Amino acid sequence: MSRSKRVVVIGADAAGMSAAHQALRGAGKRGIALDVIVLESTNHTSYSACGLPYWIAGDVDDPQRLLARSADQHRGMGVDLRMGVTATHLDLTRRNVDYVHGDGAPESVPFDELVLATGAPAVIPPWARNPDGSLIQGMHPVKNLDDGATWLGLIGIEDLLGSSSRRRQAIVVGGGYIGLEMAEAMIRRGIETTLITRSEVMSCLDTDMSDRISQAMKEAGIEMLTDTQVAKVVTGPAGEVREIATTDGRVRTADMVVLGIGVSPASELGAKAGLPVGASNGYLPDPAGRISDGIWAAGDCCEAIHRLTGDYAFMPLGTHANKQGRVVGENLSGGDARFDGVLGTAITRFVTDTHHVEIARTGLSTSEAVSAGLAVRSLVTEGRTASGYMPEASPMATKVLAEEGTRRLLGMQIVGGRGAGKRIDTAAAALWGGMTVDDLAGMDLAYAPPFATVWEAVQLAARRLADRM
Amino acid sequence: MSRSKRVVVIGADAAGMSAAHQALRGAGKRGIALDVIVLESTNHTSYSACGLPYWIAGDVDDPQRLLARSADQHRGMGVDLRMGVTATHLDLTRRNVDYVHGDGAPESVPFDELVLATGAPAVIPPWARNPDGSLIQGMHPVKNLDDGATWLGLIGIEDLLGSSSRRRQAIVVGGGYIGLEMAEAMIRRGIETTLITRSEVMSCLDTDMSDRISQAMKEAGIEMLTDTQVAKVVTGPAGEVREIATTDGRVRTADMVVLGIGVSPASELGAKAGLPVGASNGYLPDPAGRISDGIWAAGDCCEAIHRLTGDYAFMPLGTHANKQGRVVGENLSGGDARFDGVLGTAITRFVTDTHHVEIARTGLSTSEAVSAGLAVRSLVTEGRTASGYMPEASPMATKVLAEEGTRRLLGMQIVGGRGAGKRIDTAAAALWGGMTVDDLAGMDLAYAPPFATVWEAVQLAARRLADRM
Repeated sequence: MSRSKRVVVIGADAAGMSAAHQALRGAGKRGIALDVIVLESTNHTSYSACGLPYWIAGDVDDPQRLLARSADQHRGMGVDLRMGVTATHLDLTRRNVDYVHGDGAPESVPFDELVLATGAPAVIPPWARNPDGSLIQGMHPVKNLDDGATWLGLIGIEDLLGSSSRRRQAIVVGGGYIGLEMAEAMIRRGIETTLITRSEVMSCLDTDMSDRISQAMKEAGIEMLTDTQVAKVVTGPAGEVREIATTDGRVRTADMVVLGIGVSPASELGAKAGLPVGASNGYLPDPAGRISDGIWAAGDCCEAIHRLTGDYAFMPLGTHANKQGRVVGENLSGGDARFDGVLGTAITRFVTDTHHVEIARTGLSTSEAVSAGLAVRSLVTEGRTASGYMPEASPMATKVLAEEGTRRLLGMQIVGGRGAGKRIDTAAAALWGGMTVDDLAGMDLAYAPPFATVWEAVQLAARRLADRM
Repeated sequence: MSRSKRVVVIGADAAGMSAAHQALRGAGKRGIALDVIVLESTNHTSYSACGLPYWIAGDVDDPQRLLARSADQHRGMGVDLRMGVTATHLDLTRRNVDYVHGDGAPESVPFDELVLATGAPAVIPPWARNPDGSLIQGMHPVKNLDDGATWLGLIGIEDLLGSSSRRRQAIVVGGGYIGLEMAEAMIRRGIETTLITRSEVMSCLDTDMSDRISQAMKEAGIEMLTDTQVAKVVTGPAGEVREIATTDGRVRTADMVVLGIGVSPASELGAKAGLPVGASNGYLPDPAGRISDGIWAAGDCCEAIHRLTGDYAFMPLGTHANKQGRVVGENLSGGDARFDGVLGTAITRFVTDTHHVEIARTGLSTSEAVSAGLAVRSLVTEGRTASGYMPEASPMATKVLAEEGTRRLLGMQIVGGRGAGKRIDTAAAALWGGMTVDDLAGMDLAYAPPFATVWEAVQLAARRLADRM
């Protein structure tokens, strides 16, 4: 019997650990000898980054619950997990990764197969940094467990107890998922909140849909500065953030600033070694997860093929990371799995004492469809989450997008009350199957008064668009 | 210009009124002269039969809210609506319908096109009738608005006020949707409730799923007599129901008895005229809604083609009635619409102060798949409605069924907490598109911690079954 094949995985979050475990499972199933080494730069393994705003808001009491598995559990399952080590150099010819320990001690590991699962760190704008490159005190992203702990510290115990002498002020920069969820967390924590975004809030939706979100957030007491950028940060005597000035001349005081501007693929290691990256700097795996001979990539450090355009797109999401990691692990261990692309499906919500808004989208937005050269028709339909006579009934707006001529469904956006958001999966399934707006309008969906109107809202929306096409 | 074409519709509920209005809309759009006459035997038009249990339970305060439109509204939209008249004879040769008014006065109307939308009345078992054929006092079905009013009377004001001297007792006969929903209504009204069903509760699900429902109903305080039939009814001096004896010798006292045994297509009129009916006595419309030259049928009086078996099946549901009526109306007025079949998608819930159980199914159950000659593989997976660390997370069980060999998805069943049920639509969409269990496992569904686990529950269930096939 030949020596064990050695797999080195860089990154111990969703994609990396899914790949590691699936590789070991596949190897066990197929009788293949496989060693799996995972290098992780932080001191945490697979955690739910998406859960951070809910931890910060107070919905989750123990951050341990955000961890899928502990390091010891991973090791107990056969993974050689090396924490607090940073990969510094990748040599594709010698099939070797150099890395350093926290104390700077260098080490090196050879591989037969390499999995790049390095994720996507938060984008830190230049204005958020001190001259020495460190973050200005009181400004922080929301990306990993350490960030979560920092945020709980910034919010402070006195606010949790409601005993602070003045109402503290937060500025959230960024109008995407993290921006919206952190704005919710802030006002739920009793902090006066301003959101600054250079376009609209949730700009992955069309403006006739995202306007509804903006409106709800305003009603809930958040100051919304849309189409606005940060011009300057004023710091106090201890170097702490004091004020933010915008490019249109407004000035807001801030005790804390959420950096929710987005994330960017950590692809430098591979790019320096000559591996290709895409327009968003992500690796470009094929459906098997391979980017070069014996080199694989999965998760947020990658771009993925959009099923509707056929082009690579950067859509960093835990769901894709888990699936991609699993595909890579399966293929590393002699399997034949494929990751069949993304649709851009996403969901979030904005919930306070007074408001419950669910937000979801799948497929292409109008601007994405136009960019892809598609002739798009769309319509917003006002519907309800349940029969109008039921106490559960909440309004929901559904926007359906379809292609002129082929009538192919292109996308859906939903903004509505409790129970509205997850309906997006019906459209996602239809998009996955390449169905038309007529298919969606005609299909047999579930109806009972507490759950839907007799013409289910997403279906009513599809039918109304179909009637106009 | 030739004379107007005369369309006669029999039945003014969902199917009939959808057909009537769509015919008028289509005629208007296409410049066709059309007269639409609707004959309705009751004094109500389109109402939500599905809403009756919620009205009886107290969720709906005003029965007017169950009405989609009033008779005057229908008339205002151009429909010649004749209420309280019963069609008695159909002459296909002379193209004529005879009908009688409430006072017995006969009348007759000729037609160019006829729409049969006569619905499906509740099945009344022989033991529920007095020797003269009338219903035993205290026993009642739950089918139309009059039934709803009768039930509010039976429950009685004193129970609404909680002032009755002893706890009243109800027996619900039938374990389907109406049985389950009325059992919920009864215990929510503070009435001691026994449910009798000759098989399982919700026998449209496999027993490993329906057992979970039965268990929850027991825990909520309902006595569940499954695999049990009614043998005899004992009445009191005024002819009112007093006791029910079962075939296995149990006796239960009853102040009121819900007849929730099912419905049967009202197809006698057409059958007597020589129109074909199916195994369940329903009319057999083609995808255009036609059953004979110039004769159309829609709604609960019909069987519909099951997309997975290609056979006609009796699935009386408001969603189908609305869609079928619309298709018929469109085709009556020169259009070219199709009703593309059913999947057997359905949803309900059992909710009390202590329990919240959502129940949904689509496609074929195991017994249905076996009957259709399909080699079925299935698996039940325990999942959650939200990330485990979120307060919203509830357990949900998902059963996935797929065909051996082709891996084609055959069905799904869900029993779980708040937010579980409507996920069935994802599977319904996949079934509609003829997708495989692998498609469902791989598709891009919406994830955020309050809404799903990172491997969405229905997808996790599909993946686990796919792994075993």
